[in-house]
Amino acid sequence: MAQGPQPGDDYRPGLEGVVAVETAISFLDVEQESIVIRGYDLMELARSRSYPEVAYLILYGRLPGPREREDFDRRLAQHYGVSPAVRRVMEALPPTLHGMDALRTALSAMAADDAALADLSPEANLERAVALLGAIPTVVANSFRLKAGLGWREPDPALGYVANFLQLIRGRAADSLEIRAFDQLLTAYSEHEMPNSTFAARVIASTLSDMYGALVGAVASLKGPLHGGANEAVMRMLLEVGQPERMEPYLMERLARRERIMGFGHRVYMHRPDPRALLMKELLRELVAAKGQAELYTLCDIGEAVMRREKGLYPNLDYYAAPVYYLLDIPIELYTPIFFAARTAGLAAHVIEQQAHNRLFRPRVRYLGPRGLHA
Amino acid sequence: MAQGPQPGDDYRPGLEGVVAVETAISFLDVEQESIVIRGYDLMELARSRSYPEVAYLILYGRLPGPREREDFDRRLAQHYGVSPAVRRVMEALPPTLHGMDALRTALSAMAADDAALADLSPEANLERAVALLGAIPTVVANSFRLKAGLGWREPDPALGYVANFLQLIRGRAADSLEIRAFDQLLTAYSEHEMPNSTFAARVIASTLSDMYGALVGAVASLKGPLHGGANEAVMRMLLEVGQPERMEPYLMERLARRERIMGFGHRVYMHRPDPRALLMKELLRELVAAKGQAELYTLCDIGEAVMRREKGLYPNLDYYAAPVYYLLDIPIELYTPIFFAARTAGLAAHVIEQQAHNRLFRPRVRYLGPRGLHA
Repeated sequence: MAQGPQPGDDYRPGLEGVVAVETAISFLDVEQESIVIRGYDLMELARSRSYPEVAYLILYGRLPGPREREDFDRRLAQHYGVSPAVRRVMEALPPTLHGMDALRTALSAMAADDAALADLSPEANLERAVALLGAIPTVVANSFRLKAGLGWREPDPALGYVANFLQLIRGRAADSLEIRAFDQLLTAYSEHEMPNSTFAARVIASTLSDMYGALVGAVASLKGPLHGGANEAVMRMLLEVGQPERMEPYLMERLARRERIMGFGHRVYMHRPDPRALLMKELLRELVAAKGQAELYTLCDIGEAVMRREKGLYPNLDYYAAPVYYLLDIPIELYTPIFFAARTAGLAAHVIEQQAHNRLFRPRVRYLGPRGLHA
Repeated sequence: MAQGPQPGDDYRPGLEGVVAVETAISFLDVEQESIVIRGYDLMELARSRSYPEVAYLILYGRLPGPREREDFDRRLAQHYGVSPAVRRVMEALPPTLHGMDALRTALSAMAADDAALADLSPEANLERAVALLGAIPTVVANSFRLKAGLGWREPDPALGYVANFLQLIRGRAADSLEIRAFDQLLTAYSEHEMPNSTFAARVIASTLSDMYGALVGAVASLKGPLHGGANEAVMRMLLEVGQPERMEPYLMERLARRERIMGFGHRVYMHRPDPRALLMKELLRELVAAKGQAELYTLCDIGEAVMRREKGLYPNLDYYAAPVYYLLDIPIELYTPIFFAARTAGLAAHVIEQQAHNRLFRPRVRYLGPRGLHA
């Protein structure tokens, strides 16, 4: 016999369709096929504004003016580095630690350098968010390098956020197409309403725990194959298939075995396209035109058509972001950590909003176990 | 204009009263004033069973027989230690890191030693839970010792779980009253339906991320002063008051300033007593009788009466657990880490249950921000 607080309660597994949060940060307007970020359409932002401008918008609620933009870039660059203490912790991490777990551990240790840790005011949280946003590319890139047995690489404060991030990962200067592609990819991942990781961060933040803890919880969530881990799974699938003509038989075989194909469908979008996937598909076409590997575009396009025909499913962001990452020569192990780096802006904004209008998350359960036993 | 998935939706801040999970692990039956754990009353378990037996019950769904109990104790003891790699990470943590943040970081690093990390089957998760349960006292005690500049202390596999835990913390053998008191305290904290930390762990686990990530999220949640951090706040208040006769004026003054008094009230119990607080009060009386410091009992008792009279609020577990910890000579900084150690059993059981019947948590929002802006 099930027992819970209200017998007639409408239990929705996974809180599907349940409004858990009031927010002024973002909203998935599925009817209008628009991802609304502080009032703007995310696709319009990705095409006309840089990632740091969008991060500023997400954090501060409005786009920066030219002077604010300059000041924000300068503050980000001031925070590119990590302290010797955090570097020592990262260097002590065993190479058997998974990349996302290394990021989780390093981020957790970064709380040691925050002298104002107990100050959860919006002002202190915004300062903290900017510092984290600046430093996380260094943590992401060097987590990978240390695990791979490569040396520590320092950020370059003379470079903008996106160029510095790419150089930290690849060790060489990026061209303008690469910078624009990576910038748009980061913007596409910057904020997206209430996915599991953002929800986890808000749940944690609602105990008035600090931003590091909330973001550590988000890293843990993003690691999951049903969430951030999907982009890596997509790329491994694309590489396994290899040739465009093999894509249809590959998918048909897996669908016949009723296997889950990563990169398609989304709890909220359901049977509508994810606008971010369309943006990434355009970028992929441009990258392929510049760098060759046209068969990768064709392969993805065939996969999209097959899944549409067979399952009525549209590709999500992860499906087309994976080959974009690949053509940017970014190691597959970094796709999910970069997702987190890009989402830091959105996560931090949600932590700030949660703590400014807080109500502790503490739901109830429907109890399905036994009763009346005696020890 | 607010926008969300269903215009007539009933938004309940903090998911108060919302059934978010179906579970066979535990249930707060407020009407019957019983905390139901796998069908048993938690207070009955605390009085008649040891903490390891209750942890077994929580994890396996039934009380162990004598042979199972012996086997479980042996398996716990096998896992008391941590690997040299984890010890090295812990020794690299800067002493400026908060105790709960050190625990969060060390736990995050422990994933490095799990060769079966991607296996989320109930069997693998149970093995993992037993290993974590065994090792966490070593991590908790040594996080504190390293931060305080003390040397590493090794666990003693010849001792039972509770005696070993106390010895790790205090460096001396415990007497039978101390062992019984700490055992009951651990049982009181072992499992409690769907508090914020358990919910955070289940939200994270629902992406099919692993148990370490889910538990790291729970540590982050427990750190918050609205959750696990409350027991430390209570003890600091009791020490600040110092003398029984100062308790009433102290509370009246703080209430007049409309300040929050930690240790009273609970989202679910509201205006009914928390049975765990009553259990801890009994233990406090016994400890005071054996160890002196009767004024501490009197001080707490006065505080209880004042809060009942002035606010109609009952003490919660944290209020009477704090002085029990104190009389056990446990440093205040360890109260919340020990809460986590005790709750590891419950948290792990919820991760196992979530992943065995998974549905990704992904709620929606009510959007209160602007619309129709152009970049």
